[in-house]
Order: sequence, then structure tokens, then C-alpha cells
Amino acid sequence: MSSVSSSNNNNNNNNNITGVKRKAALLNEKYEFESTLTLEKLRKQQAEFAKERDWDQFHTPRNLLLALVGEVGELSEIFQWKGEVKPGLPDWKEKDKIHLGEELSDVLVYLIRLSDKCGIDLATAVQDKIKRNAAKYPAHLAKGSSDKYTAYTEQVKKSKK
Amino acid sequence: MSSVSSSNNNNNNNNNITGVKRKAALLNEKYEFESTLTLEKLRKQQAEFAKERDWDQFHTPRNLLLALVGEVGELSEIFQWKGEVKPGLPDWKEKDKIHLGEELSDVLVYLIRLSDKCGIDLATAVQDKIKRNAAKYPAHLAKGSSDKYTAYTEQVKKSKK
Amino acid sequence: MSSVSSSNNNNNNNNNITGVKRKAALLNEKYEFESTLTLEKLRKQQAEFAKERDWDQFHTPRNLLLALVGEVGELSEIFQWKGEVKPGLPDWKEKDKIHLGEELSDVLVYLIRLSDKCGIDLATAVQDKIKRNAAKYPAHLAKGSSDKYTAYTEQVKKSKK
Amino acid sequence: MSSVSSSNNNNNNNNNITGVKRKAALLNEKYEFESTLTLEKLRKQQAEFAKERDWDQFHTPRNLLLALVGEVGELSEIFQWKGEVKPGLPDWKEKDKIHLGEELSDVLVYLIRLSDKCGIDLATAVQDKIKRNAAKYPAHLAKGSSDKYTAYTEQVKKSKK
Repeated sequence: MSSVSSSNNNNNNNNNITGVKRKAALLNEKYEFESTLTLEKLRKQQAEFAKERDWDQFHTPRNLLLALVGEVGELSEIFQWKGEVKPGLPDWKEKDKIHLGEELSDVLVYLIRLSDKCGIDLATAVQDKIKRNAAKYPAHLAKGSSDKYTAYTEQVKKSKK
Repeated sequence: MSSVSSSNNNNNNNNNITGVKRKAALLNEKYEFESTLTLEKLRKQQAEFAKERDWDQFHTPRNLLLALVGEVGELSEIFQWKGEVKPGLPDWKEKDKIHLGEELSDVLVYLIRLSDKCGIDLATAVQDKIKRNAAKYPAHLAKGSSDKYTAYTEQVKKSKK
Repeated sequence: MSSVSSSNNNNNNNNNITGVKRKAALLNEKYEFESTLTLEKLRKQQAEFAKERDWDQFHTPRNLLLALVGEVGELSEIFQWKGEVKPGLPDWKEKDKIHLGEELSDVLVYLIRLSDKCGIDLATAVQDKIKRNAAKYPAHLAKGSSDKYTAYTEQVKKSKK
Repeated sequence: MSSVSSSNNNNNNNNNITGVKRKAALLNEKYEFESTLTLEKLRKQQAEFAKERDWDQFHTPRNLLLALVGEVGELSEIFQWKGEVKPGLPDWKEKDKIHLGEELSDVLVYLIRLSDKCGIDLATAVQDKIKRNAAKYPAHLAKGSSDKYTAYTEQVKKSKK
């Protein structure tokens, strides 16, 4: 039981070790992500990274899943004693935002690697899922409600007739 | 305590509801993801999806984080009674792979939405993190080892001199 | 991606199925748990439950761990769209508290089962851990602070001399 | 992304700090937990621990939930690169079993604290849940099957008539 994650300290040490500067990847004025990075590029990068290190032997689906759970735990630790936080994190220190960006990245990396090793095309799967979500939560019915879609299933069915 | 997720049943129902066909997004012969989908496109899609439904009021950072944890739980339920599974999931039924693709997608959707609402450019952050990982785990030192990078920190430091 | 857990519905159905009434296990006026239930009694109950159903074949450590993660996901879903909630949950409906009690129970059941199948005496382990936490977080130093213990490690060391 | 948890190192340091010896809380020959520790005793210990440190201000339900998720992440990290592990962990080193006992304990501590701060009597709730599980999974129907109970719901209903 620890009150606050020690990751900041560790990460500072990493700086000394790796010599790669940690940058704050904050959203720009237009509030967008960098626009060219594809899921496939990330998949390929990670596949090569693992191959060069002979790590495919460790990257079984359930190993990767547990690694993903571990990273989600680290992500949660960042938020655990903070109470509710505001969108955009206006009160956070720069170094805490950097740390957050790293943990979000770790989750993404394992998610992509897990998809790859399961033979799932995550890019196609997520586009399918978004279409299905749009059909499950029609804007005019779901507006302003956090109800599960089953709350208006009947209405959706009727509207399709 | 349930032995097996009920999501398949639910998802089958969804099919009836939404009319959007669930497709298997399996990796193609070249074992790649669809190549054009960017993280920014996903961010923008989700931001518009939420705006149209007036859901930004619910999408606070910690709400989204708990939703992410919920989806990781659903992902884990798919694997929970299976014992070790082989890369590529050669023994899985088509519908179970589709279900897996959906849960992986849900995690991705909330991860991107969480990053967006925290003001973190996930695309830039993940590219930074991958560079740092490469520096922490040099291929010639990390080869075939699942040790944490601290196991060869000294060697990395020396090699940088 | 679902806005709200469907578990209430499922649980209501369960009521019909099992005929076992769901009770609200709310804290009494003295705000205490029922006082006689031991961890060992729970361990024994679960071991017998599994044996009677020939489920030990499924209850490998990693299967149980993933089942635990799944239940933590269901627990998180209860809290996901609520924003911050007050201690004692004064604004919650009775049925939502019952549902919460069930998910907390599911986590406990798998935690005990996992410990058992790993050969760890959880009762002894937790008492050891609490002693260690007390030493790491001396009341006079930790008072009113959510800092990790490393923030006052030096003071703890000195005070032991 | 780290290959192996650094917790062992941290914990070794803790030993130096706290002076409280870490013991292996392995199951005894009869394969049982210590028999007297009740959930209520744990609840009371933690409530006093928090009160002495003025920590109730941090122990809101969602803060505790995220802390629980963080500990489940640390638990998962122990298992992440191991592939399937055998019941009883016959191949594990003593120090890794101690570490496991600590992480299992951390999850338990936060689970009890969360229940307490939500006003849920976890001891009563879990006994109710176990009764309901027994009704949902009758031994003669569930024997040797990991199917979800809904697979034999009809049979359960009929057998109740």
C-alpha cells in the first residue's frame, strides 16, 4: 500500500539512464493529436522491437494481457488520491502530465501488441465497433443520457422498421 | 462470479438491434493492420460522437479511466478460463475472435478519449515513449531476456560514455 | 462500450432463477461488518464449492487472476459515470448498493481463491503487511499527507537509531 | 513498459527502512489460512490506521477504488511474463512468494477499506453472494463445466418447480 506512485522518481532516473529527453506531449492549440501516426505503424514498430530483442517468446497473448493490466494499474495510480480532476488537467504540474503521457502510451503499446499477437486487425475492428456504437446510441435518443443503450433498444428497433 | 462472459449473447442481441454486421477483423496474409487509420482520426471521431450526444458532461478524466478499467475487465473475461492460448488464436471460434476484436476496440476508444480529455497528444507521447524504451532496452543487452531494464542500467550508462 | 452496466438487469433475472433473495448488506448503526466471518472460513467454503463442481481444473493461478481482473472491471463499471461519490453512498438506491455488495464480494471470493491456489496464507500475509505499513507510515510523520512513504524515509531511519 | 516489476527491489529497501521482517506466509501442511482473522478485525484495523493518520480525507470511494486497481496492476505484474504457473507455485523463489503475499494483501486491504467507506458490510454481502452462487451453479449441473450459469438456467428453473 503506497500513497503515491513512485514512478516519477523512477522516470527521473530513466532520464539519466537513457539520455532521451522526456517531452510533454500536450495537445496543441487546435487540441489535436499529431496527425500522421497510424495504428499499423505502431504495430510494425513494436513487432520489430520485439523481434530485435528476441522477445516474441515472452509475448504470448495472456502474458501481454497481464502486462496491459499492470500498465492500467500504473495509470490508475496517477489518479488515485486526486479526487475528481478537470478536463485538460489545468492544475497539474508539467512533470505529472509527462508521466501521464508515458503511462497512457504503455497501455497503448501493449494493446496493439496484444491485438497483433492475437491476429486481430485492431484498426478494422475499431472502425467496425464505432459504427456499431453509432447504431446502438442514436444521437437523438442518447442525447444527454448515460443510460445503457438497452434503455432505448425498443425505440431503436421501431425506428428501423 | 460468472464462469464465462455473457457478452457473446449480448452482442448477438446487439446485432439484431443495430443491424450493423459484426465482421471478423482478422489479420490478413501479410499479418498487418489496416494501414491508414491514424490515432488523430480516432480522436476526432470520438470527440464528435460525444459532442453529438452531449456526452462531454460525463467524459471527465476519472469517469473515462473507470470506463477503461471496466473494458479491460471485459477483455480479461474472454481469456479467464482458457489457460494459455497460442499466438494467432488458431483454436478459437470466429465469433470469439470477433468478440475479442470488440473488447480490444473498446479499450482503445476509451484510451484515446481519456488522452484527449486530459489534453495529452497520445500520438506524440507514444512515439517519445518508444524512443525511450529503445534506449532503455538496447537490443544487444536485452536480447532474449525479460529482465527489467534496471538489470543492465550500469552497462547502458557505460556504453553511453 | 456501454454507458452503464447491465448487471442490475442480470441480477434481477438471477433472483428469478435462484430464488435466493438479495439482501442489502448495509453497515449497521455501529458501522461494523458482521463480526465472526474469518478469511479461513471463506477459503474453506470456496475450496469445497470448487471441489463439489470439479472446478479445480479451471482454477489455475492465472485463470483466477484474470477472473479477479474481470470482477474489478465490473466493480469499476458501477462507479464509472457517477463522478465523485460521497462516503456511505447516501444518494444511492438500495438496489445499487446491493449490486455493489455483490461485486465487492466477487472480488473477495477470487482473491481468496487465488491466494489458496498459490499456497499463500492470506490471513498471515495481510497481518504482516499491516505491521509493515505501520512502520513505513508512522502516524506522526504521515499525518494528513498522501505522500508516498519514501518522502519521509530518512526521518523514519533516524527515528529508529 | 517494464519487463519485470521492480517491487522486489523496493521491498528490500523497505526492509531496511521498517525493520519489520518480511515473512513467507505460506500455507501450512493442512493447507489452511490462519484461522482467527475476521473481516471485521481487518476493517477496524484499517479504520483506526486511517484515523490516526488523518487519511479519511483521502479515502473517498473512488480514490480507494483506483488504489485497488493500482494494486491489482501490481499483482498482475508479478505474473505477467511467467506463462502458466502451477498451483502452489512449486518453482517460485521464497522472496517472490513473499512479494506475492504482499500484493494480495494490498488488494485485500483496499477492498475492505472501500467496502467500509461505502457503508457495505462485506462479511454479510459475501455470505449472501456465496449462497446465490450455490443456487446458480448447482453441483450436479455445473460439474466439470466452466459454462456460465445461464447455460443451464432452464434446468435450474425446472428443478425448482
